Amino acid sequence: MAAVEIKALARSLAVLLAIVCAFMFVSALAAVAIDEARIGLKAFGIPSALGLCLGLSVYLTRRKYGRTVLSPRAGYMFVTLGWALSAGIGALPFFLSGAIPSYVDAYFETMSGFTTTGATILTNIEFLPRCLLLWRAATHWLGGMGIVVLTVAILPLLGISGRALMEAEAPGPSVDKFTPRLSQTAKILWLVYLGLTLVQTVLLMFGGMDWLDALTHSFATMATGGFSTKNLSVGAYNSAYIDWVVTIFMVLAGINFSLHWKLLRGQFAPVFRDTELRTYLAVFVVSTLLVSVNLLHGGLYTTFGQALRYAAFQNSSILTTTGFATADYLGWPAFSQTILFVLMMIGGCAGSTAGGIKVGRIVTLFKMGFSELKYLLNPRGIYGVYVDGRYLKKNVVYDIAAMVFLYAVSVVVSTLVISFGGFDVMTSLSATLATLGNIGPGFSLVGPAFNYDFFPMWIKAWLSFIMMLGRLEIFTVLVIFTRAFWKK
Amino acid sequence: MAAVEIKALARSLAVLLAIVCAFMFVSALAAVAIDEARIGLKAFGIPSALGLCLGLSVYLTRRKYGRTVLSPRAGYMFVTLGWALSAGIGALPFFLSGAIPSYVDAYFETMSGFTTTGATILTNIEFLPRCLLLWRAATHWLGGMGIVVLTVAILPLLGISGRALMEAEAPGPSVDKFTPRLSQTAKILWLVYLGLTLVQTVLLMFGGMDWLDALTHSFATMATGGFSTKNLSVGAYNSAYIDWVVTIFMVLAGINFSLHWKLLRGQFAPVFRDTELRTYLAVFVVSTLLVSVNLLHGGLYTTFGQALRYAAFQNSSILTTTGFATADYLGWPAFSQTILFVLMMIGGCAGSTAGGIKVGRIVTLFKMGFSELKYLLNPRGIYGVYVDGRYLKKNVVYDIAAMVFLYAVSVVVSTLVISFGGFDVMTSLSATLATLGNIGPGFSLVGPAFNYDFFPMWIKAWLSFIMMLGRLEIFTVLVIFTRAFWKK
Repeated sequence: MAAVEIKALARSLAVLLAIVCAFMFVSALAAVAIDEARIGLKAFGIPSALGLCLGLSVYLTRRKYGRTVLSPRAGYMFVTLGWALSAGIGALPFFLSGAIPSYVDAYFETMSGFTTTGATILTNIEFLPRCLLLWRAATHWLGGMGIVVLTVAILPLLGISGRALMEAEAPGPSVDKFTPRLSQTAKILWLVYLGLTLVQTVLLMFGGMDWLDALTHSFATMATGGFSTKNLSVGAYNSAYIDWVVTIFMVLAGINFSLHWKLLRGQFAPVFRDTELRTYLAVFVVSTLLVSVNLLHGGLYTTFGQALRYAAFQNSSILTTTGFATADYLGWPAFSQTILFVLMMIGGCAGSTAGGIKVGRIVTLFKMGFSELKYLLNPRGIYGVYVDGRYLKKNVVYDIAAMVFLYAVSVVVSTLVISFGGFDVMTSLSATLATLGNIGPGFSLVGPAFNYDFFPMWIKAWLSFIMMLGRLEIFTVLVIFTRAFWKK
Repeated sequence: MAAVEIKALARSLAVLLAIVCAFMFVSALAAVAIDEARIGLKAFGIPSALGLCLGLSVYLTRRKYGRTVLSPRAGYMFVTLGWALSAGIGALPFFLSGAIPSYVDAYFETMSGFTTTGATILTNIEFLPRCLLLWRAATHWLGGMGIVVLTVAILPLLGISGRALMEAEAPGPSVDKFTPRLSQTAKILWLVYLGLTLVQTVLLMFGGMDWLDALTHSFATMATGGFSTKNLSVGAYNSAYIDWVVTIFMVLAGINFSLHWKLLRGQFAPVFRDTELRTYLAVFVVSTLLVSVNLLHGGLYTTFGQALRYAAFQNSSILTTTGFATADYLGWPAFSQTILFVLMMIGGCAGSTAGGIKVGRIVTLFKMGFSELKYLLNPRGIYGVYVDGRYLKKNVVYDIAAMVFLYAVSVVVSTLVISFGGFDVMTSLSATLATLGNIGPGFSLVGPAFNYDFFPMWIKAWLSFIMMLGRLEIFTVLVIFTRAFWKK
């Protein structure tokens, strides 16, 4: 990379890390407010000071460097390094406060936060100081919408254009360009995100949660993260009201945010016609009904309402890649478990905070498969793939197929890596699906009632990488490992 | 379908079934030779007579109908119905002789034979009369090369051209057209197949097997089927010599048969350059070395030679989708089990008798993935997929991606169906992989030391369908279920 590229990259990273540190500073203020000043200083003092230095150095040199545009190459580097370094700096409070004595553990926990995975190495979550629980949930919230989308709205102010970034970071196959200016788009998405978070917080407080629990759970819901402040996750509240509020907001968080914006502006028609949304809701409804009936039939719950409540919660939690739990599905009948296993491989909608392959991609590949079947019958015919009435160029379909294939290859490679540590096929496979898809809980040893603490350090480090690989949709990270990236 | 199409289809099916019955007649003769005349008559009498009637009726009306060509539509119908009816008629000996009292069980066993899967519902194989063991292995051998490829060489004699069939049946992404005439091609493939079977039979007899065991095991090896005449499979012989002979012939059977022919004709260069072959061998060698070291390290074997013997056997058995066993890999370390689990998803080479996705398809998708990575860095560049130095048209890559996606969808659907019967995720998933990939043994309840007898009838019927779906490479069967197929 050229020197000018490296400087622009360094400045962008400095801004990003300054923002991360700014949120730590807010957590420090919260610590004071909830009488945890001592632990707050120990945890957030150094990172806050570091953030101030980074921010100032960029601000003071802004005239000297002026407007610079990140090349695609520097953009990919920025996104990948941005996540890796954010987790590195975000792990400091856990480590410095002594709450998580091992730095690798702290790094895993923070990467799990920023990638909105929600896999934890904590064996006793309630033991953590409340200011750290807040910071832990805040990593979800920050990561959820994409630290980068945030910075896309702020970087231009500092003279760095972010157009290349959006391409690398866009959470899903396509960002519907509903406003012409990119930073404008980012701000709108951010407002929707903020608005939904506040509404959920208020609704959860009505259900009896205190403000901190309500806020942290809203952070974790809207980011489809899954970090709870309770060892029993949302199940700890044992409240049908809270379960349903969280269920509904998980489903909302898994929907393309540009559709939320359209709804708010009264544009109902394009929302109801949206193929991805309809498929996503259909998957959720059908799988929930099947699991409900299966649970009722298996005698786990006595009323259909109860079965529905637990089925809807667990299904939306896995489908949207959140990872909250109100029941240990490892005790569920085999059919229900298999449905959850399949949901693990789907994920939410493009343009949401959800991880996984994404419903839109799977819909496209289904249409591709059907068009090939037609082609078999009439080899001289021309059959295209249409989504929402729009013709998809072969290149786009091609690109989606390649991404899904590399996703599958990542699953295979990571499963082999984990099993090398002596863990059974199901643990290795589901731990991979749960981290690559940014879900959190899996099956066997990583079921919803367990955590990731028992893995050796090298597997925790590997899984941190896998979480990042999944969050950045494979390509963005893999491209850095190609020879072409480093040529010339 | 037009009346003329239906007549051509019926005549083709009659010929196919007559051929199947002719092989039953041969089994009946063998029964007499080995002093099982009574049971032979009971098992093969009626089907042989049926075959004679079918054959005669087609032969006597050959002038009236003359040459007819199967349309693609009728071709797909022929292949799918051909396999379904062959299994239906091939199941009769097991059912009529009383050896398998349930017809669904007998159908499952025969479909498992014709699709070269090797999954069995027999709890005591050695209890079967030897003439039925021979017929059981013969279903592998017949199915292995494709009943259809056989008929492609014979149908033309009866005035039915088989060009459309080859497209539907070709075992793999591409049949290298190394001779201009199709029936010529089929005959050559058939000769290679026959030759290798005879060589293996002789080699196994050197190892101490009697002629019937040697022949049946060679049938099952060359077809990558996996039916043994022993309850302990090939492990029953406990002979390093036999293990290695079978290992080598399994690996040979998983190679594109047109490459065998090229080798026989002295064309070494194109064989050594063949990307699929090189990848296939690399996968086999690397996975075998990894498993050997893992087994040695795990203390399961005391010498590297022993570990290598069992690793090579089990790995080639799963990779080539044969399904023989000399060890119960469910007792192996997690890493070795995971490697076998991954091999289950690969399969052999195109143009071999192996099932699964096939190495060639996976190689193509890898190249597709890499070309997309290059495209990310330089969106204005044009990057194609090249295999063996030849440019693959986007349509071909597209077709492969669609097939692999539908393969994955079939895995998901079938796993859900089986788990509906109350079977755990791993049993449901691996039973699906083992039948769709025409392998045989899987994991959990369908491990190599178990069998498929415990499944309820409806799951056995479903798995029979899945075996056929996998053997005919998804498209051929699925196309019949499209609306376009039945239109007009």
